[in-house]
Amino acid sequence: SPLIKLAVIPGDGIGPEVVAEAVKVLEAATSADDVTFDATWFSLGAARFLETGDVLTDDDLAAIAGHDAILLGAVGGVPGDPRLANANIERGLLLKLRFSLDHYVNLRPSVLYHGVPSPLASPGTVDFVVVREGTEGPYVGNGGAIRQGTAHEVANEVSVNTAFGVERVVRYAFAQAQGRPRRHLTLVHKTNVLVFAGSLWQRIVTAVAAEYPEVTVDYLHVDAATIFLVSNPSRFDVIVTDNLFGDILTDLAAAISGGIGLAASGNINPEGRFPSMFEPVHGSAPDIAGKQLADPTAAILSVALLLEHFGLTDAAARVTAAVTADIVARAALDIPRSTSAVGDAIVTRLTDKGIQ
Amino acid sequence: SPLIKLAVIPGDGIGPEVVAEAVKVLEAATSADDVTFDATWFSLGAARFLETGDVLTDDDLAAIAGHDAILLGAVGGVPGDPRLANANIERGLLLKLRFSLDHYVNLRPSVLYHGVPSPLASPGTVDFVVVREGTEGPYVGNGGAIRQGTAHEVANEVSVNTAFGVERVVRYAFAQAQGRPRRHLTLVHKTNVLVFAGSLWQRIVTAVAAEYPEVTVDYLHVDAATIFLVSNPSRFDVIVTDNLFGDILTDLAAAISGGIGLAASGNINPEGRFPSMFEPVHGSAPDIAGKQLADPTAAILSVALLLEHFGLTDAAARVTAAVTADIVARAALDIPRSTSAVGDAIVTRLTDKGIQ
Ligand SMILES: CC(C)[C@H](C(=O)O)[C@@H](O)C(=O)O
Ligand SMILES: CC(C)[C@H](C(=O)O)[C@@H](O)C(=O)O
Repeated sequence: SPLIKLAVIPGDGIGPEVVAEAVKVLEAATSADDVTFDATWFSLGAARFLETGDVLTDDDLAAIAGHDAILLGAVGGVPGDPRLANANIERGLLLKLRFSLDHYVNLRPSVLYHGVPSPLASPGTVDFVVVREGTEGPYVGNGGAIRQGTAHEVANEVSVNTAFGVERVVRYAFAQAQGRPRRHLTLVHKTNVLVFAGSLWQRIVTAVAAEYPEVTVDYLHVDAATIFLVSNPSRFDVIVTDNLFGDILTDLAAAISGGIGLAASGNINPEGRFPSMFEPVHGSAPDIAGKQLADPTAAILSVALLLEHFGLTDAAARVTAAVTADIVARAALDIPRSTSAVGDAIVTRLTDKGIQ
Repeated sequence: SPLIKLAVIPGDGIGPEVVAEAVKVLEAATSADDVTFDATWFSLGAARFLETGDVLTDDDLAAIAGHDAILLGAVGGVPGDPRLANANIERGLLLKLRFSLDHYVNLRPSVLYHGVPSPLASPGTVDFVVVREGTEGPYVGNGGAIRQGTAHEVANEVSVNTAFGVERVVRYAFAQAQGRPRRHLTLVHKTNVLVFAGSLWQRIVTAVAAEYPEVTVDYLHVDAATIFLVSNPSRFDVIVTDNLFGDILTDLAAAISGGIGLAASGNINPEGRFPSMFEPVHGSAPDIAGKQLADPTAAILSVALLLEHFGLTDAAARVTAAVTADIVARAALDIPRSTSAVGDAIVTRLTDKGIQ
């Protein structure tokens, strides 16, 4: 039976707790399938940095790259910890993995599940996916400063956008749109200000759109997109956007669809030349770590994206169905459940046909 | 009596309609004061461009710069109009004015007035102000492209941030925070990714904070800030942020506090070396132009910011009070009022002591 080598990076804070549940669910969801996941656990993140001074060594990277996929919990230490002042675990670990492993698609679905409270008074149906570019834009790290620390300091940040990089993620987004019932794609950018990058994105979307006559296309400036996300989120089906706009929009999208406790993401290298990485959108939340208070749902939904990525569509659908049913059941609970109780409840739904 | 020379730029679409009401209110609000506004009207925007091919000539700019303040309606033609394809009225007019006239403070208050519906289920008290930098960041226009139109195109955008530019706007923001009851300031940036620009902003905020011991300071990444804007907007008092983040956050802020029909803004050169410019945040909305359907409230609230800028605090307070009262009265109306009926109602409240 096919073996999928999984690199598991629990990370910091609540990362290990939510990843433990995600792995339980992964096993339960695929126990009847002709596939085996073989997990290798990597100790990376702020804790590891404090111990060894390393964030991600070349050896770490090579070892991880030898796997078929990555499941990541969350990384990052306690905010303000002076020992981490110059570490930037996010850049050195999370972004380094995304860039080194060419995760050019950052896939972030937003679904407001039945029974989940939204901060919006009348959210309507929320069911869209953001296809965020993952290897370009203002995230490339091509910034610099002169006269640092003086009154004459100039600090620049460069957003780099290539036809190659934009086209491949735009194609991915159109393919997603084509496969969804509404077949609608919205490009989000700021073409009236970022005229060079904006023009590139706009031209490529227009060109690829010609190959997808069934997909309707529109455009929104990023500022206007935030308005629609709170006033009429139902208008969105697939959003394609750059790395920074995608970062901002997906946090907002998570907020309106029940919070980042539910938001899953995939950092995908679609051709499979490198392992794709699946992670909840939330951070390490050190304040509640180790107390079994974290909601593992986002990590578990990231497992569904992982299964989808390997074409294990049925298993993915089972996970989503079990989570959806659990979310409905939550509304009736009197007291909050522990992290592992949530995982157990979802595992029970997956294995006990009677209950599911 | 002091004479304030006002350059009025009604612009396109609904601009002329809302500006007409704003000017009526300005006159009514100051009729009893020892001040006279002398308005010169400038025909600028998409319509002017289509007529003459000019967006903003050096002569236009010099003439406008000779005034004490600017009141602007909205600029921009019908989206997709092929004759405007290469015009970029926003960059050539709005941004050119902001940059040429050194509008380094873009002041955007967000208040959820009593009686105004919010898309949030439980917005709580919303009363904060965004101090958006106006002359730096990704807005500087320092982008470029090579191999444009080929598969090898690279399009860059450069965000330029200077100690000079950041410090002056941060000082302005702290002064605002000091003058508000809650004395709280939040820096919003993305320091974990835009490390050079982020470090500059962070260091300057920390340095200036030492001069304002009564102001409490915190920091949020821009993505997290969008979450709080929908989950707990009451946490904000003064937000200081860069040009692009400010653009995005203020549209979202407007959306949660009743929509951009109510959002006012001031593009301010605090030292008064150049005329400051006051404008509603909304655009020209060509689809509803000329029909008396537009809500002039945002333009009228921009007049309050203009009065405030000239130290006409009482007149500013009168305008805000009249608008606030009108907003409450709106809830009881059966049919929508015309643009001029809204202006007239607010003028009546300003002049008729009995009603006010
Ligand atoms: C932690 C940070 C670098 C990261 C990002 O900005 O991409 C996070 O916000 C996310 O969205 O995954
Ligand atoms: C029209 C556009 C250039 C402008 C901006 O991006 O600043 C607008 O969105 C605003 O917020 O005033």
